[in-house]
Amino acid sequence: MHTERTNKNIKLLLASTSTVYGSNYLEYLMPELEEFFKDIKQLIFIPFARPAGISHEAYSSLVSRTLTKIGIDVLGLHSCEDPQKALSEAEAIFVGGGNTFVLVHQLYALGLMDSLRQSVLSGSKYLGTSAGSNIAGVSMQTTNDMPILSVPSYATCAWIPFNINPHYLDPNPQSRHKGETRQTRIKEFHVYNQTPVLGLREGSWLRVTGDQIRLCGPHSARLFRKNQEPQEIPPTQLLSFSPNT
Amino acid sequence: MHTERTNKNIKLLLASTSTVYGSNYLEYLMPELEEFFKDIKQLIFIPFARPAGISHEAYSSLVSRTLTKIGIDVLGLHSCEDPQKALSEAEAIFVGGGNTFVLVHQLYALGLMDSLRQSVLSGSKYLGTSAGSNIAGVSMQTTNDMPILSVPSYATCAWIPFNINPHYLDPNPQSRHKGETRQTRIKEFHVYNQTPVLGLREGSWLRVTGDQIRLCGPHSARLFRKNQEPQEIPPTQLLSFSPNT
Repeated sequence: MHTERTNKNIKLLLASTSTVYGSNYLEYLMPELEEFFKDIKQLIFIPFARPAGISHEAYSSLVSRTLTKIGIDVLGLHSCEDPQKALSEAEAIFVGGGNTFVLVHQLYALGLMDSLRQSVLSGSKYLGTSAGSNIAGVSMQTTNDMPILSVPSYATCAWIPFNINPHYLDPNPQSRHKGETRQTRIKEFHVYNQTPVLGLREGSWLRVTGDQIRLCGPHSARLFRKNQEPQEIPPTQLLSFSPNT
Repeated sequence: MHTERTNKNIKLLLASTSTVYGSNYLEYLMPELEEFFKDIKQLIFIPFARPAGISHEAYSSLVSRTLTKIGIDVLGLHSCEDPQKALSEAEAIFVGGGNTFVLVHQLYALGLMDSLRQSVLSGSKYLGTSAGSNIAGVSMQTTNDMPILSVPSYATCAWIPFNINPHYLDPNPQSRHKGETRQTRIKEFHVYNQTPVLGLREGSWLRVTGDQIRLCGPHSARLFRKNQEPQEIPPTQLLSFSPNT
């Protein structure tokens, strides 16, 4: 995977979560999805992350029932005879959440990581939620998921020059739990790695158009850089990354 | 790594956490440690998991200051000229918490995973906390940690015929967070893996003597087996595993 910035065709919508508390699957995002996908008739859904072990078929059905409301026909990648061709010809691609190790394992096992990457670099619109947003980053190394399957590499699509930590959680001052906070885990990541990490709170998403990256939704996001104090990025602000960070 | 049960010399103390809320490092465990280590004068400490990126030196000093109170002299493995020899001759070994990927990466990189395993099979007393308890299991795949370094294998010491999930957390019915609960993550593990998983709550520990495994401390533990309802194990109960589970 390279991180060269030949990104002018990139169009991404990267959400921290598919679902916010008290509402249905993708419900909070529907106005944004309607606008993002306004000229899209068909979308390829990649169900590989399998939340709670749901089958590819059942996961694709859920997405199909949801996106048909905005006039989008959903095809599960698992049911495509030639998945490479399906990805390269896709107008739009959606990678749903679940376990990031399972998702990355399967994309590499089927030889599809690079096909996915190239398709989006060539202009396929991309929607990611949770694990699907994680793989838009440089590596999957700031996932919250358990390593329930092995992966040949942590490298992911690198459409953006940083990593995402989805479902970002602030330390709870009331908590008596002594397990590491999310912030501590990301600090540990930066002992060994340079890549900046964006902690994306539930209800937040990024809109990426070429090199322009905008934080959307009601919350600020928390940006972690090696050897620097974390920084709060206010909502609707453009994120700025110099080429070497 | 093999899982054959040639475990008659095994003596383990495996704690969910080094520290419980409102008390100092290892403080809640000191009476148990005093008894477990009653005939031990020197202990080899493995500082590789580096919580919050602390140096090997600083981590070993903390352990040394703590265990000197019960008359134990601590030697950090990072400072041993011949770490294989140090492990094979150790009366007692302590692997502290931190990041499990970093710990396992380093043990494999230095060729020490098998030395550690064999030393404990030959009778070295072993204390683990958090990541150090995780590696007593069959694999590190039920860690809560981020994959901040790569590992050549998830296989760990397999002194016990199951995996540990340290810092086990019950779902919080008040929470509005939509990230996966610990129970969901372990259920996802069992989609792809057979190994039973013991969710060990903070303040709990296991005492293992040969094939006898006892849950200690004030809390019950939660045992997850593939395709079965989770089971609560009451404190001070012996855990029973048939050879093929």
